Amino acid sequence: MKRASERELLIINIINLRHYGLGTHKQVDDYQYGGGAGMVMMCEPLDNCISDLKSHHEYDEIIFLTPDGNTFDQKIANRLSCRNKLLLICGHYKGIDQRIRDMHVTLEISVGDYVLSGGELAAAIVTDAIGRLIPGVLNDETSALTDSFQDNLLAPPVYTRPYDYKGLKVPEVLLSGNDKFIEEWRFDTSLKNTEIKRPDLLD
Amino acid sequence: MKRASERELLIINIINLRHYGLGTHKQVDDYQYGGGAGMVMMCEPLDNCISDLKSHHEYDEIIFLTPDGNTFDQKIANRLSCRNKLLLICGHYKGIDQRIRDMHVTLEISVGDYVLSGGELAAAIVTDAIGRLIPGVLNDETSALTDSFQDNLLAPPVYTRPYDYKGLKVPEVLLSGNDKFIEEWRFDTSLKNTEIKRPDLLD
Repeated sequence: MKRASERELLIINIINLRHYGLGTHKQVDDYQYGGGAGMVMMCEPLDNCISDLKSHHEYDEIIFLTPDGNTFDQKIANRLSCRNKLLLICGHYKGIDQRIRDMHVTLEISVGDYVLSGGELAAAIVTDAIGRLIPGVLNDETSALTDSFQDNLLAPPVYTRPYDYKGLKVPEVLLSGNDKFIEEWRFDTSLKNTEIKRPDLLD
Repeated sequence: MKRASERELLIINIINLRHYGLGTHKQVDDYQYGGGAGMVMMCEPLDNCISDLKSHHEYDEIIFLTPDGNTFDQKIANRLSCRNKLLLICGHYKGIDQRIRDMHVTLEISVGDYVLSGGELAAAIVTDAIGRLIPGVLNDETSALTDSFQDNLLAPPVYTRPYDYKGLKVPEVLLSGNDKFIEEWRFDTSLKNTEIKRPDLLD
């Protein structure tokens, strides 16, 4: 991602919401209505921040990272990698005021069924997954096409030198020089791995 | 996580595999057997690194972050948060030599059905999700218990002041002061959200 940024294939702007905080303490969060543990990020700083950004940029999607969003996967990554400008909103604490979601957000994404201390790592995940699909970012463009999930199969195991490491050997077929056999072995192994580990991907 | 590290509730050591690289160029990767795009991380640097670490620490799990691993979720996070020492291995490029997985790895984890440029962000996700469950890390310990997924339901929407923001109002029940009604509203909204967005969680 660093190389991609330097070559301007991908431009990342990080906005500190604190700049839009209220009062002398630059407040961005408050107790939740109805009581309960955990603070909630307030409407006004987020609304001011998002409205300010919208007045300067035309966003294809305004994305909120949240555990109750659409589960992020390679299909969504592929789709978003074709967009031009994305705004990613990172929550913190217990979440953001629901009204901001109703007012501004066009797509809600969850990177998985677990809870993080904030949306920052989730935004980094989404940025990385999308960024590496942008043409020119990876050294070898065909590399991304043989990744797991691009064909609904898990990737086959990979091996490099030495051939014999402490008695563990590389499967003979990979040394055969026969591209057809290698291709078949990789497909069969991918399919078998997927059947065993992730049968849901084959549905 | 920074606060948790400072208070030594969580100790994170980052090991640079390059220190175990081979030759003057400190090589850690090589072309893959059988051809194809993408480099593979070699056995020897990883084996030397992991063996060195194992000789100094007793690990409860040696985890490899990989898209074809077990899908990480809150249950796995809960379980791992009760362990003492974990070793997380981050792949890069096309992956690591399969023989390292066979020799050392006790648990393979995927943070989601997408491909990243390396395992580092996945390791950060796992560390964050586990770390915040360690007693004393969150300011208010009950906060984690009401998160999404802890009860197989998505969390209900949250609101904070002001009551009326640009004409959008907080649901009246949350201002009622009646804990029983609030609890019921939150449960009903959670259940409805889960039915609509993630019926699979209710199976």
